Amino acid sequence: MGSRRSSPHSCPGGGTWVLGVDSGGSGLRVALAAVAPGVAAEVVQSVAFGEPVRTGAGGIDAGQLLERLVPAAEGLLGRAGAGGLAAVAVGAAGMATLGDELRARLPEALRRSLGVDRLALAADAVTAYAGALGQRPGAVVAAGTGMIALGTDLSTWRRADGWGHLLGDCGGGAWIGRAGLEAAMRAYDGRRGGSAALLARVEAVFGPPATLPGLLYPRADRPAVLASFAPEVARCAADDPVSAGILARAAGHIAEAAAAVCPPGDDREVALTGGLFAMGDPLLVPLRAELAEQLPYARPVSAAGDPLSGAVAVAAALATDTLRLPRQPGMLDTTPL
Amino acid sequence: MGSRRSSPHSCPGGGTWVLGVDSGGSGLRVALAAVAPGVAAEVVQSVAFGEPVRTGAGGIDAGQLLERLVPAAEGLLGRAGAGGLAAVAVGAAGMATLGDELRARLPEALRRSLGVDRLALAADAVTAYAGALGQRPGAVVAAGTGMIALGTDLSTWRRADGWGHLLGDCGGGAWIGRAGLEAAMRAYDGRRGGSAALLARVEAVFGPPATLPGLLYPRADRPAVLASFAPEVARCAADDPVSAGILARAAGHIAEAAAAVCPPGDDREVALTGGLFAMGDPLLVPLRAELAEQLPYARPVSAAGDPLSGAVAVAAALATDTLRLPRQPGMLDTTPL
Repeated sequence: MGSRRSSPHSCPGGGTWVLGVDSGGSGLRVALAAVAPGVAAEVVQSVAFGEPVRTGAGGIDAGQLLERLVPAAEGLLGRAGAGGLAAVAVGAAGMATLGDELRARLPEALRRSLGVDRLALAADAVTAYAGALGQRPGAVVAAGTGMIALGTDLSTWRRADGWGHLLGDCGGGAWIGRAGLEAAMRAYDGRRGGSAALLARVEAVFGPPATLPGLLYPRADRPAVLASFAPEVARCAADDPVSAGILARAAGHIAEAAAAVCPPGDDREVALTGGLFAMGDPLLVPLRAELAEQLPYARPVSAAGDPLSGAVAVAAALATDTLRLPRQPGMLDTTPL
Repeated sequence: MGSRRSSPHSCPGGGTWVLGVDSGGSGLRVALAAVAPGVAAEVVQSVAFGEPVRTGAGGIDAGQLLERLVPAAEGLLGRAGAGGLAAVAVGAAGMATLGDELRARLPEALRRSLGVDRLALAADAVTAYAGALGQRPGAVVAAGTGMIALGTDLSTWRRADGWGHLLGDCGGGAWIGRAGLEAAMRAYDGRRGGSAALLARVEAVFGPPATLPGLLYPRADRPAVLASFAPEVARCAADDPVSAGILARAAGHIAEAAAAVCPPGDDREVALTGGLFAMGDPLLVPLRAELAEQLPYARPVSAAGDPLSGAVAVAAALATDTLRLPRQPGMLDTTPL
């Protein structure tokens, strides 16, 4: 540690080195970036672990995160010929409710192992925000299996939804898939509101409809199973009014969340990020219409980058004393925690 | 066994004895009834076990069911001074999909232990039907945490919904509670469609709204947790349009299921049974209106009895060769299975 801290954190161009970390349901990614004053951080190398970091009753497993993060960071630093790190930012799913162990253990562990004093712990929605809009005020919708909207006027964060598949995540992948499966079972029963097209897709994907409960309920990853059916709803939407109706309602819910968090003001930016939007026009066409109606003062923009690039951006801002995104417990904590 | 079978199954009035069994999520109940020709079966004694019979990957645990059922039946027979049983009917939750082990083991086990040849295995919805409408054609909605509708013209069964809290059970207790919790979280976020009244009830019942995901998702009995909030929605409905809207939609879904299964014909009976309807007018007033609109040819009637009395009625019909309810695999199976 002493040797690292005595060496300057400088990189070849005269800047410093920072580490961005993205820990989510699909795994752990770590990026090393060079930071120079007045220039966007540039990622030089990154590594990815496909397995997510464990989450137990006590929250995100800080020990397992450190076991992967520290050697990965040392490897990245070694290969880049970097002497040390000026800052680390960790974005983690469940940070707001499950981050107590990270807050308690990470600062001291990273100081000891990597010689870094400056640490940011962020909710994954915050790194998604920073990746999409950088440090500008506005709103970001992050949607995959779930759906959450986050907005800031740079003095405080506002969050909407992201409450999970039973309490909300309205319009996300599990929501769309669940609505599609319900419409299929309605057709199977002969109830009002059924879709023969979606029933045919259930039969093709899962087999006999009556076996679906036995396939779904015993699974631990029920939201992912539900979300796996969302692309089928999108595929049916062109010819099936029930499917198109589900996506129209999803678009309405996503826009409601964005409208609840977007700060007032002219020419605000609203960015969409996450795998759900790969669904394309069947969702994006009604979503653009809903955003125009519910947030007429905001301008939809493309997300500049992903949550890993957002973690790098937060680390770079921390290293250069230019962090403008609001610090708020459970959303964005910086050392001393 | 031999001694039992050699003694006649007669009871004091010259009839015979039958056993009705109701195995569901809230436990196991067993009733002994006296059956005389041309007279409704009369329950003379019953016992209840609060703990539900185990359900594993292989289905309903036939061994555990027998461990409780056989001594209970022997005790009931002994106390009634009855020599033997003419028939047994078992109504079980999950029968249609999880009843393979029961079908395989129960007939021989009951023949050996209780000396009874005539056995009916029924889905719990079928015993609910028999309890509510006896052997008349019509439709029965059984609703508690879940919701299922069953109808028959006495030649075949039609079923609608009952697919569980993620695929349907539309309008049941978990559905209503879930919709209420979502409306509360909408109010908490400032999203459209929120209910301040329901948010206040969430705070009173569960504490800070942001802690709700952590309370709900780790539980194994999530549908029951959701359903526990349904009475709060009913309580708010008089003054809160969002709550009233949830119950109106629930009423619509329940009537849709009833309409899908009710056989055509004049003056059909539709009965409502199960704990959900204890909610009273906040649900029943919109439900009566929906039934009048969606099933104008059917007449709402009170359920004559509960699923245990339905199991007794099926056993009595089996004993007296008067079973008119349709035999159908997974719905109503009779020996030989």
